[in-house]
Order: sequence, then C-alpha cells, then structure tokens
Amino acid sequence: MPDTNRQIRLAARPTGELQPSDWEHADAPVTEPGEGQFAGVTKMISLDPAMRGWLDDRPSYVPPVGLGEVMRAGSLIEITESNHPKYAAGDHVVGAFGVQEHVVSDGKGCVKVDPDAAPLATYLGALGMPGMTAYFGLLDVGALKEGETVLVSGAAGAVGSMVGQIATVKGCRVVGIAGGPGKCALLTDELGFDVALDYRSDGFKKALRDATPDGVDVYFDNVGGDILDLALTRLAMKARVVICGAISQYNTETRHQGPSNYMALLVRRARMEGFVVFDYARRYAEAAQEIAGWIAEGKIKAQEHVVQGSIDDFPDTLQMLFRGENVGKLVLELA
Amino acid sequence: MPDTNRQIRLAARPTGELQPSDWEHADAPVTEPGEGQFAGVTKMISLDPAMRGWLDDRPSYVPPVGLGEVMRAGSLIEITESNHPKYAAGDHVVGAFGVQEHVVSDGKGCVKVDPDAAPLATYLGALGMPGMTAYFGLLDVGALKEGETVLVSGAAGAVGSMVGQIATVKGCRVVGIAGGPGKCALLTDELGFDVALDYRSDGFKKALRDATPDGVDVYFDNVGGDILDLALTRLAMKARVVICGAISQYNTETRHQGPSNYMALLVRRARMEGFVVFDYARRYAEAAQEIAGWIAEGKIKAQEHVVQGSIDDFPDTLQMLFRGENVGKLVLELA
Repeated sequence: MPDTNRQIRLAARPTGELQPSDWEHADAPVTEPGEGQFAGVTKMISLDPAMRGWLDDRPSYVPPVGLGEVMRAGSLIEITESNHPKYAAGDHVVGAFGVQEHVVSDGKGCVKVDPDAAPLATYLGALGMPGMTAYFGLLDVGALKEGETVLVSGAAGAVGSMVGQIATVKGCRVVGIAGGPGKCALLTDELGFDVALDYRSDGFKKALRDATPDGVDVYFDNVGGDILDLALTRLAMKARVVICGAISQYNTETRHQGPSNYMALLVRRARMEGFVVFDYARRYAEAAQEIAGWIAEGKIKAQEHVVQGSIDDFPDTLQMLFRGENVGKLVLELA
Repeated sequence: MPDTNRQIRLAARPTGELQPSDWEHADAPVTEPGEGQFAGVTKMISLDPAMRGWLDDRPSYVPPVGLGEVMRAGSLIEITESNHPKYAAGDHVVGAFGVQEHVVSDGKGCVKVDPDAAPLATYLGALGMPGMTAYFGLLDVGALKEGETVLVSGAAGAVGSMVGQIATVKGCRVVGIAGGPGKCALLTDELGFDVALDYRSDGFKKALRDATPDGVDVYFDNVGGDILDLALTRLAMKARVVICGAISQYNTETRHQGPSNYMALLVRRARMEGFVVFDYARRYAEAAQEIAGWIAEGKIKAQEHVVQGSIDDFPDTLQMLFRGENVGKLVLELA
C-alpha cells in the first residue's frame, strides 16, 4: 500500500474560466479504515458540468466546496480493506468520494455495483447520476407523453444523450442540439435521434424551425443562454421547459443571461421548471433497473468518453466539458 | 341618435413608448343593428396593460390590432336597440366592443350584467377580466395553499390588488410590491395586505428579504424586469412563479430583459408558468359568483380608478398605466 494519497483540492475561488492555479495537487497520508468503515482505491472519477457551480460561493442546492477541501466528485472505487459488515475487499462501490486516489468511507450514500454486469464507466453515466437526471427530468418534471416532440440541448453530453434516447423509447420525436457535425452524426446514426442540429452551423435557427413544425412539447435544457432563448420561440401549447443545467453560463463573470423570450411561457401557456436529481434518491434503483433493461434490449446505448490518466489530470479533463470536447459521459480512469 | 360614431383607431405601430401620433381619432357613421344584433352606447372602457402588447406585430395569444382598425378594448355598453332575442334595450353588457362610442354586436362573447348589483366599473375590474385573471392565475396556475406566503408585484393594479386580497381570503401571508407610499398605504390599510413594499424606496431589497423570512411560495408577476429577478432570489422550495404580465418591459425598444436569476428555479425545485385568462372562459361565472360573495361579505374591496372623459381621452388615459398613476382597475367613463 502506498504511503500517500494524491488529492486535488480547491486552492482558489475561480472567477470566469477555471485556471490551473485554482487547484492544489497535494499528497495526504493514506488512512486506515476504522470500525464500520472501508478503504478503497479510486478507479474512475466522474466529471460533471455541475462541478463548476460547486466552486462558486453562492446559495445553491449544495454548499460550495470549501477552500482547501478535496474537490467533490462522484467516483467508483474498489474496496481494498473493509471493517464494514455490508462491504468486502474486492467490492466496487460508487459514491461521492472526491478527487483523490484513496478513500475511506462509512458507506453512507454509497451503492455497490457489479463489474460483470456493465462496464464500470456506465455506473457513472447511464446507470449513474446522468442517467437518473435524464430519467426523472424527462419523465417526472417534463411529464413526457408518447407521441410528443422533445428538444434537448447538450444532446451529445452525458445527460442529453440519455434524454434523447429515453424519449425515443417512449415513442417521441426527438430533436437534439449539439456542437459540431461529428456529434450530430453520432446522435442520428448511433443514438436514434430523429434530427440533430449543429448550433454552430449557419442555418441553425431555420433548421430548428423546420425540425419542429408542430412546436416542442418538452424542451430539456442543459445549456442556457442563446439556445434556451431560441427554444422558447418553438414551444407548443402547454409545453414544459425542464431546467437541468446552463453550461454556457457557468464561466461567465457577469450575471447569467436570462431568457429574454420568457413571455413565450404566457403565450404558450407553458411552464419552466427546475429540479435536482438528489430529490429522487429513493427511486434511483427503480430507474436504474429500467435503464439497464433498455440497454440489455439494445434500445439505449450507454455513451461514454473515458480519459486515461492520473489524478493530476483532473483539472485538464474537467475543462473538456466546457470546451465541448466530450461525447457522452466523461470519466477519468486512473491507471 | 347622433350621426357619428367617434372611434380611436391604430394609426401606426408604436416603437417604445406610445405617442399621440400612434392613434387616429376618427368619425364613422352610426350603423343600425341587423337581424340577431343589438346596438348600444359605450358607458365605460377598460384600460389594460395587455393593450400595449396587442399593438406589436409579433406572435402572441391574440393577433395584433391591425393598422387602421378600431383599438381593441373591453367595455361596458347600454343597449339602445335590439333585434337579438336575448337582449333588450336598457340591458347593460360587457364585451370586447373596442374604443368607440357606438357599438353593434351579435352578442358573441358578451355578458349581460346587473347595474343594481354592483357599480358598473366593478364589472370591468373585480368581476371582470382582472378579477378572473387574479382568481385563476393564483388558485389554478399558482396552486395556492392555505398558510403559504404570496408575493405579488403591481400589487396596487387591477389584477395585483385582487391577487393579494384573494390570497388573504385563502388564509395566506401576503406581501405586495407597488410604487410609492400612497399605494403601499392603501394595500395594508384598506386591502388587507400583510406587508406592502415600495420598489422605489432605498431599502427595498432588504425590506423584501425581511418580509419573506421563509421565502415565497407563490410569486405572481405583473411587471417583469428587475423585480422578477429579485423575486427569484426569494423563492421557497417548490415555489410557483405565475407569469401574468411584464409591464416594465412592454415599452422597451430592445429585447425584453430576461430573468437572470432563473436558475433559482433549479436550486429551489420551482416552476415558472404562464397563462392566458381566456382559457378559463367556461369557469368565469363560477369565479365571478365566488368573488361577488367575498365582496358582499366585506372580505374583498373592488378597487377602481375611474377617469371621466370622452373617447378622445383614451390615449392619455392608457398612458397612466405605464406611468403607474392608477390605483386599482383603470376605466374611462364616458360622459
């Protein structure tokens, strides 16, 4: 067992884009598990757009990561030693273990996963938080009905790719918005989207109009900004706008760009609703089971983007999200 | 019977603030009612913030008023001659008769009212569209529950004053936002609001925080802009934001100011929903009956602002709304 536990800690509160100096790469001593605890080694770390929000010192759905604290992150570990009655060495466990190589935990909020039933990365993607977020956001908050038209932004991302595929399973017409022809081809060719629109292309606005002749019943927003504003012009009557994220706004140093077209909610008798997936924790198992079934039937593809590296690669890998460089769920796999 | 029917017609599409040159004051011939029609003389004209939106040539919940057309308006008339089986001379009728002195109608969309049961202006206010808007917006869209905290902007206006009073009847804590100490005093001293806040006063932001220690369960927005943005910072968990109007934005020549703080909807698991009162037409009678009961019991005061004048005073009177000069329902009573 090595002596040191390499960690990535928050060194400074970022303003605007993240900088290398916002992070401290530190070595902590490796600690032994106490009574009722287990120790494990980190195999994979989840990278999520929401992480950017956790760094800002403002009221939100979780407290901000404190200066000097290990960066908060979901990860998948393999247990090396256990004094916990429900866990044994060799078990694989997902939890909020933070960006560090070695973990000691009492098991609270953790889920044991089966490495033979699915690739490890899938437990951080389609069967993890992004899958849960897509499932409950679309079906519960969005109240999706068969035959409706769904529009999703950030469609090639971890959540967006699941939103579109779940909507397809539910018998809906699915239009995805993503950045670049490669992502768009993936959406239509491999993930079953009816239409994929490249927001960087010249004809984007007209293409969105043409792709939604009857309007949009559910718009699932992961990006905010201009795309949210444009989507509001395409709402069908009684539409639901699901507010899941706003990645286009997370790095702005000024105030967020509010949706100028929000009065479309009145014209279209529509609603815009936010949610936090943690509220559905009691139903995660039910959702994961259903999603696993769809994957097994070949109806849904768990799209992952695995970066191989060391814990020190966390800051650079995180930036890929904000540059739109990932396709599907982005994870950092430790060698 | 006079020979001419004085009318106010739309002469030009306004940009920004309304100008006298946007209106044409015209004389049309007085027409006789045909078979199945009645003729009447206008007694009172309703002035509504929504009128500004009807002048813009953009997609909305009703088509824009056409250039050269008589300005759309709700009004109350007295029938002078009838060839309609359900109406007789002397009947008082509310309908969308437009800004003109003389009316001929087939009765579609009209409601006969009893001039002995309530002041005529009340049929355009508490028992008319503003009352219906407050009732269905608060109770149906806002899904108000007893004991909740309600915040309403434009609280001294036709809709806002009814929203606050209905919320009081429903056993809620009511905080109103209005412009100036006079309006604020009216809200607390005469209309039963728990707190009234003057948005023009220096301590407004802090006063709003202090007045909503447990957050806001229903925010009923009539104004948009900075006040909507501020209200979003005060949402309780699972709050409902009812989008009824945006009077602060109607005269802007640039894009509407979108709510920069809309991500509060996510943090607070809240929703923002728009509505158009016309959708509730089949339930107007039920609502009017309940409101009339509350007025009779002294639980609600129908607050009206009656301007005496001629039809030519319509453009100036309408401007009072955008300058915040009215208290309660603004009507123009023709001599």
